Amino acid sequence: MKAALGLDFGTESVRAVLVDLRGRERASAVAKYPHGQIIESLPGSKKKLPPHYALQHPLDWLDSAAKATRAVLRSARNAEVLGIGVDFTSCTMLPTKRDGTPLCLLKEFAAEPLAWPKLWKHHGAQSQTDRINAVARERGENFLQRYGGIIGLEWYFPKMLETLELAPRAYDAAEVWLEAGDWFVWQLVGGPAESLPRSTCQAGYKGMWSATDGYPSEDFLRAVNPKFARVVKDKMPGRLLAPGVAADGLTAAMAKKLGLREGTPVSAAIIDAHAGVPGAGAADPGTLVMVMGTSSCHMLNSEVERSVPGVAGVVKDGILPGFFGYETGQAAVGDAFDWLRKLTGQRDFAALAREAAALPPGAEGVMCVDWFNGCRTPLMDGSLHGAFAGLALHHRPAHLYRALLEASAFGVRWIVELLRDGGVAVNKFVATGGLPHHNPLVVQVYADVLGENITVHPSKQGPALGAAILGALAAGAFKSPGDAIRAMATPKPGTASAFKPNRSHRAAYDALYREYLRLGDFFSAKPNS
Amino acid sequence: MKAALGLDFGTESVRAVLVDLRGRERASAVAKYPHGQIIESLPGSKKKLPPHYALQHPLDWLDSAAKATRAVLRSARNAEVLGIGVDFTSCTMLPTKRDGTPLCLLKEFAAEPLAWPKLWKHHGAQSQTDRINAVARERGENFLQRYGGIIGLEWYFPKMLETLELAPRAYDAAEVWLEAGDWFVWQLVGGPAESLPRSTCQAGYKGMWSATDGYPSEDFLRAVNPKFARVVKDKMPGRLLAPGVAADGLTAAMAKKLGLREGTPVSAAIIDAHAGVPGAGAADPGTLVMVMGTSSCHMLNSEVERSVPGVAGVVKDGILPGFFGYETGQAAVGDAFDWLRKLTGQRDFAALAREAAALPPGAEGVMCVDWFNGCRTPLMDGSLHGAFAGLALHHRPAHLYRALLEASAFGVRWIVELLRDGGVAVNKFVATGGLPHHNPLVVQVYADVLGENITVHPSKQGPALGAAILGALAAGAFKSPGDAIRAMATPKPGTASAFKPNRSHRAAYDALYREYLRLGDFFSAKPNS
Repeated sequence: MKAALGLDFGTESVRAVLVDLRGRERASAVAKYPHGQIIESLPGSKKKLPPHYALQHPLDWLDSAAKATRAVLRSARNAEVLGIGVDFTSCTMLPTKRDGTPLCLLKEFAAEPLAWPKLWKHHGAQSQTDRINAVARERGENFLQRYGGIIGLEWYFPKMLETLELAPRAYDAAEVWLEAGDWFVWQLVGGPAESLPRSTCQAGYKGMWSATDGYPSEDFLRAVNPKFARVVKDKMPGRLLAPGVAADGLTAAMAKKLGLREGTPVSAAIIDAHAGVPGAGAADPGTLVMVMGTSSCHMLNSEVERSVPGVAGVVKDGILPGFFGYETGQAAVGDAFDWLRKLTGQRDFAALAREAAALPPGAEGVMCVDWFNGCRTPLMDGSLHGAFAGLALHHRPAHLYRALLEASAFGVRWIVELLRDGGVAVNKFVATGGLPHHNPLVVQVYADVLGENITVHPSKQGPALGAAILGALAAGAFKSPGDAIRAMATPKPGTASAFKPNRSHRAAYDALYREYLRLGDFFSAKPNS
Repeated sequence: MKAALGLDFGTESVRAVLVDLRGRERASAVAKYPHGQIIESLPGSKKKLPPHYALQHPLDWLDSAAKATRAVLRSARNAEVLGIGVDFTSCTMLPTKRDGTPLCLLKEFAAEPLAWPKLWKHHGAQSQTDRINAVARERGENFLQRYGGIIGLEWYFPKMLETLELAPRAYDAAEVWLEAGDWFVWQLVGGPAESLPRSTCQAGYKGMWSATDGYPSEDFLRAVNPKFARVVKDKMPGRLLAPGVAADGLTAAMAKKLGLREGTPVSAAIIDAHAGVPGAGAADPGTLVMVMGTSSCHMLNSEVERSVPGVAGVVKDGILPGFFGYETGQAAVGDAFDWLRKLTGQRDFAALAREAAALPPGAEGVMCVDWFNGCRTPLMDGSLHGAFAGLALHHRPAHLYRALLEASAFGVRWIVELLRDGGVAVNKFVATGGLPHHNPLVVQVYADVLGENITVHPSKQGPALGAAILGALAAGAFKSPGDAIRAMATPKPGTASAFKPNRSHRAAYDALYREYLRLGDFFSAKPNS
């Protein structure tokens, strides 16, 4: 049986799936990262990390990927793996030596937190982000337009600059800075630093790169910090490859570690959320693919390039060749639901969901602003916070939970209205990721608030399926991305659940949405402005 | 042993205390009201009451008072009860026939919720309150000035008007409307409706009455609703008596029911919170007595009469003869703490208090607006709601709890600053009521936020002690209220706990207080204004 392997690197674990060329999942396995998220202290240390730090251990990625891959191969013994696709959280990034050795594995830097891989949610680079934005605005840098006018706290250049300014010794010792997804693919295929395979997806959405303008200019970087001027030239070697393009074949050593054939083609990496677009069968423009998990990433392919205020990234061929890929997101979704569940002392979501479903729109007066991890689209401000308002003594946890679900839905509606107001068509809605499968209430609330049908794609591993599709493309198994998506990710009839909006809630939600925007206005205004 | 009996009617129960003339408490007992607060449905009915309704059963007051009084008499067999004082929640009020029979005890009206006693927190009269305020403002009624420019949702005239407009048959059948405290005293001393004893305290603070202007005029009441014009003349018979003045002596029937001597002098009633002022030993002007319980009432005697925006009531001789009594309040204090405890799934306050005490001022970014039952002083708006802001995924229940304690303290600071800005001196702070004794953290936070020393009066039954003092006054046991208070309510040396402000928190709390006012501004503004 001919199959493609998808490796989907999440925040806590990696998932391996084996998918045949007709889209049937033949095996799937998850392996947790032994160190998980490194938040409290570095391995082997008791020193508390500063707040907002979130790091990872690079060997976890290799070891867990090998474990999960061996597990799927054991389950599907007759599989002939044609190609490998890799999706990864982003911007998760790290500094290495020229031979690819992560700086944090050198004795000298093992105790320096900023020499370790920074997880996407690491929020240590606030002042650097502010400066990058201020200088870019002042100089009228072109790249700002592609990112809704603002660079994010979680992105690649702020994270490099943070290390330069707070751990200059580590910065100086770093010979290569790169995305974790690119580092992993590089480890699989080997080769010198000069030609290491970098994904146009990660570079375009998180690295301020575009096919026409390249990376930010030396002049700009010098204006940000003189020592930062040559970072692109000196510390960012490699080739830029689109997802689905073969980076090279597996090395002998890695083939052995994973239990695969040497030389198996490996695709350039893709951001995990973006892999959800092919994974959700969205081969056509105008479909908003909502990849919902701890956070959410909402992506759309369009035939037009428009500058939409606050939209985090518009990248040509960034998701699928031939389209402009729009990336938007919400920083806390499943994470926020789980926070509220714990805050209210609930063991699970059963009682909350049952009670919240029975409440009317508006949760009997409770309003929420869902910025518990900042606001990604459209404000791109990680320093913003969440709120509950309208609270009275008769409100129970389920009122807050319903208000939170509604706030999350208002956040999506805000994004959709900005896209449409900016001239970008949005005409279909597909939900994917883990959350829609175990939380149907949130999908229903989204449908009601948007006033739109939402299809939940039956694959419970959309990004992993998307990665496998890229693996099949890298192996040359299909003529075009569209062909691969249609063959491997069209839901079988009757397997996709469809959520229809309750029209009788429309007027109530229109009014509540305006109130959400009013609250958002207040909480995003600076106190002294 | 010569003693006075204080009967302190709370929201859920009545407390009886026997206090000797040197202020030593000789016995104390609590009896719960069998029907408690009637919130879900009327006794004997399954029909759900509208939201915001809160009623009581009048026989509960008599039966529970008898039970508690008999209990204290059993504990202190040698007591010779000289006089009886009564404090009562307010505005808790009811309609009766001319012989004092509550309307709700007549078969005809047993199923009419608005014929039942309305508890102070009954919030059914919003539209009536709005109209009374609008008409009063339009006509430039003098009484508005005494109440900070606004009449409260919980007051006496709105509650009567609610019944007139929503249950006109019950209104027509009502021959007497009166405060529950006055009704209870009337039951004790008997006599015709024409001379039933009404308290100047209840009338002054909740009934828009003043010694110089009397009740609102017939013209004003006609402008509010033509059918309301003659309510004072037709349905409010009685004499107005200051607290501490004897209404009359116990009837034989009531003496038998309570186990007391016929003819024992009974003082005119006082509002429960106001009884806390003599109960806290505050015989001098300028002392803010904070009576803290489910809600809080902060009272002050002053030598000057000033119109302070938002201060709920200024009544000459309203608390103690010779001073202007200022009443201010917070609508949800202990109630709100308990609501948050339940919301966060905590069994008790132990863990919350321990963790919250260890947090720095500002609860690591969490801000609260404490209007979970509306805002009493200064906004006098029961329709306002509470909020939590600044929330992020790392916040735990203790962060919200600390933010709530701080918000409650900011609410007091707001009141104190308004009084001082209005020219009313506030130079001492005494906390009393149940809350300060079992929640020292809230008193410390108040001291820190106010930057003032706070003394917690050792009596755990301040209002009940105050009521007993009024009973002693009614019996003629002292020459003046000041003498009685000094004799019966001066804390014994070493029994009062003193809380000193932590000066190092001052700057932080100054900034947080400004942020609280900013949030309050936003949440009290009407969306479309």
